[in-house]
Amino acid sequence: MDDRIRDHARTLVEWSARIEAGDDVVVEVGEGAHDLGVAVAERLGETGANLLATYRSPELQRAYLRAGDGEFETDPDYELALYERADSVLILKGSNNTAGSADVPGGRRQAHSKARQAIREARLDTDWVSTQHPTRAMAQQAGMAYAAYQDFVYDATLRDWESLAEEQARLKGILDDGETVRIRADGTDLTLDIGGRTAVNSAASVAYDSHNLPSGEVFTAPADTAGVVTFDVPMTIQGQRVRDVKLTFKDGVVVDFSAEQGAGVVEEVIETDGGSRRLGELGIGMNRGVDRITDNILFDEKMGGTVHLALGRAYDACLPAGVSGNESAVHEDLITTMGEGSLLEVDGETVQEDGRFVWE
Amino acid sequence: MDDRIRDHARTLVEWSARIEAGDDVVVEVGEGAHDLGVAVAERLGETGANLLATYRSPELQRAYLRAGDGEFETDPDYELALYERADSVLILKGSNNTAGSADVPGGRRQAHSKARQAIREARLDTDWVSTQHPTRAMAQQAGMAYAAYQDFVYDATLRDWESLAEEQARLKGILDDGETVRIRADGTDLTLDIGGRTAVNSAASVAYDSHNLPSGEVFTAPADTAGVVTFDVPMTIQGQRVRDVKLTFKDGVVVDFSAEQGAGVVEEVIETDGGSRRLGELGIGMNRGVDRITDNILFDEKMGGTVHLALGRAYDACLPAGVSGNESAVHEDLITTMGEGSLLEVDGETVQEDGRFVWE
Repeated sequence: MDDRIRDHARTLVEWSARIEAGDDVVVEVGEGAHDLGVAVAERLGETGANLLATYRSPELQRAYLRAGDGEFETDPDYELALYERADSVLILKGSNNTAGSADVPGGRRQAHSKARQAIREARLDTDWVSTQHPTRAMAQQAGMAYAAYQDFVYDATLRDWESLAEEQARLKGILDDGETVRIRADGTDLTLDIGGRTAVNSAASVAYDSHNLPSGEVFTAPADTAGVVTFDVPMTIQGQRVRDVKLTFKDGVVVDFSAEQGAGVVEEVIETDGGSRRLGELGIGMNRGVDRITDNILFDEKMGGTVHLALGRAYDACLPAGVSGNESAVHEDLITTMGEGSLLEVDGETVQEDGRFVWE
Repeated sequence: MDDRIRDHARTLVEWSARIEAGDDVVVEVGEGAHDLGVAVAERLGETGANLLATYRSPELQRAYLRAGDGEFETDPDYELALYERADSVLILKGSNNTAGSADVPGGRRQAHSKARQAIREARLDTDWVSTQHPTRAMAQQAGMAYAAYQDFVYDATLRDWESLAEEQARLKGILDDGETVRIRADGTDLTLDIGGRTAVNSAASVAYDSHNLPSGEVFTAPADTAGVVTFDVPMTIQGQRVRDVKLTFKDGVVVDFSAEQGAGVVEEVIETDGGSRRLGELGIGMNRGVDRITDNILFDEKMGGTVHLALGRAYDACLPAGVSGNESAVHEDLITTMGEGSLLEVDGETVQEDGRFVWE
């Protein structure tokens, strides 16, 4: 076994999920994540935690969802009981075909998801962490050779998380104390009001309220937004490619938009509900191990020298007690590169210039 | 997808497990059983049952068991809650390496198993069914080419179960009414007392108290045994090959034994405890789709024209109410071929001659 798979498992179990002896752990093994599953099982055995492995298969899911009549029982008892009692859920993504469930009608997927709200909440109540094993299908989606993609995934995942958490704490301090963020880049001049909001130091560990491995970002929830932003990083949203989305904000609300590609799906997102016309998240990527865009949000939004904004729902952790977030059924991230000539300012002070933080 | 995989799934879900709309079904997907898992998911969707897929992986299990200190928590709460609430457990075996956990020390495996008694009982309380998807590793173990092994598995599995159940009912009637079974074959002349015992018509369906697909046998629990029996079918017991085991019984107890190969492991089995020196089962194979021995007990013991006897524990279903079975920690099947010149009699009446039933 590649030593990096064992290192990945150790990082996941120790740093990210903080598993301890006696913990009841569900390990969700993706179709192509078997080897990481083996390494995680070994680590859980060493830790003295309990192991129950489930099978995360888009192909099984597709067959199940397409076969039925579209009606689903609400929160089946046996599955709810499992997740209500679990301490941690480790999600080992790793698809053998990223289009493996492409032909499941969206309505059916939503009906299934809607019937499982209590199960979803029980899962979110655990110390869950989502990570990804490099597969050939993921390499293909990234347009990369397999060995190069493995290097990419492990460079992004096997960081010195403790030291990155310290660096991120610095940015969190600036954002927590700040009132106004201004982002200037090619096609972008945007002002965001963040007064009274709390930033999350997303350091790939439940101890930091961070549930992705890799992570490596600091994010907060803007209260108000004005100006224009262009997202130059191509994305896949609901299976559709989008490129060069441009949004214009006034009084916090999208008043105009355009896109070089995929304007239809962008419009769908914006028009979902009241909250989907506003921003729920301002995230600043700080993971320097992510050195390219791979069409995978788990990695893309963490890339050092990028900023992402999400239309829709805000995270509670960013909001003052009693303030409800930007209520919405969606949370759709869009990413812009902070390249040559870009500037990120908080209350008029430069924090990042040309994509490099002032302390870098 | 091979149509036979869909037929296998339909047989499993409809005939064997009798799944109905709303049932809470755990599908345990073996490392190499993905395709059958997809077909079963499709069938469950059509039926309107609930699906939770677990991952049955000898490699994960090996890594977990070897890594720890050998101490295991008793019946972890979350897993027990799952199986206590499940209606059915469908076990889709299908290994990619039948020796995948060969280097787990026996003591560690036993300690883990011992710590999970309530979970095991909760699983046995469901409408569970164990079946097997043909893999290349299983073909290798059988000494067969893959395509030929697929044919073998589906010939054995996709039977006319309704008509086989009727044929087996005939033998069950004879055994239920009978007092004494006598088996004569090359190296065998054995008399078994079955008075007052009840035979099970094992027709691959929970409706017949039968939990294997394929099945195809009628079995009962002898109360007394005398004579000698030679098991000419080679077996693998606890990873060891055994061949031509010969047992001599007096007053129901093994008084002498020998084996051409594997005498050590046979001795271990016999000396496990008081019950392991006695027979717990007399089984008569009636599945004519199993036309050869493949070193896999799920198929071997069902082969038409064979008889198997198990040292150790008897099944409760065979015993009169209040009579405790042959208490033992083991249940080890051994198989003998009923070839030319063989005779199976019940109370002096011929039931099978030269391996053919009198009604065949």
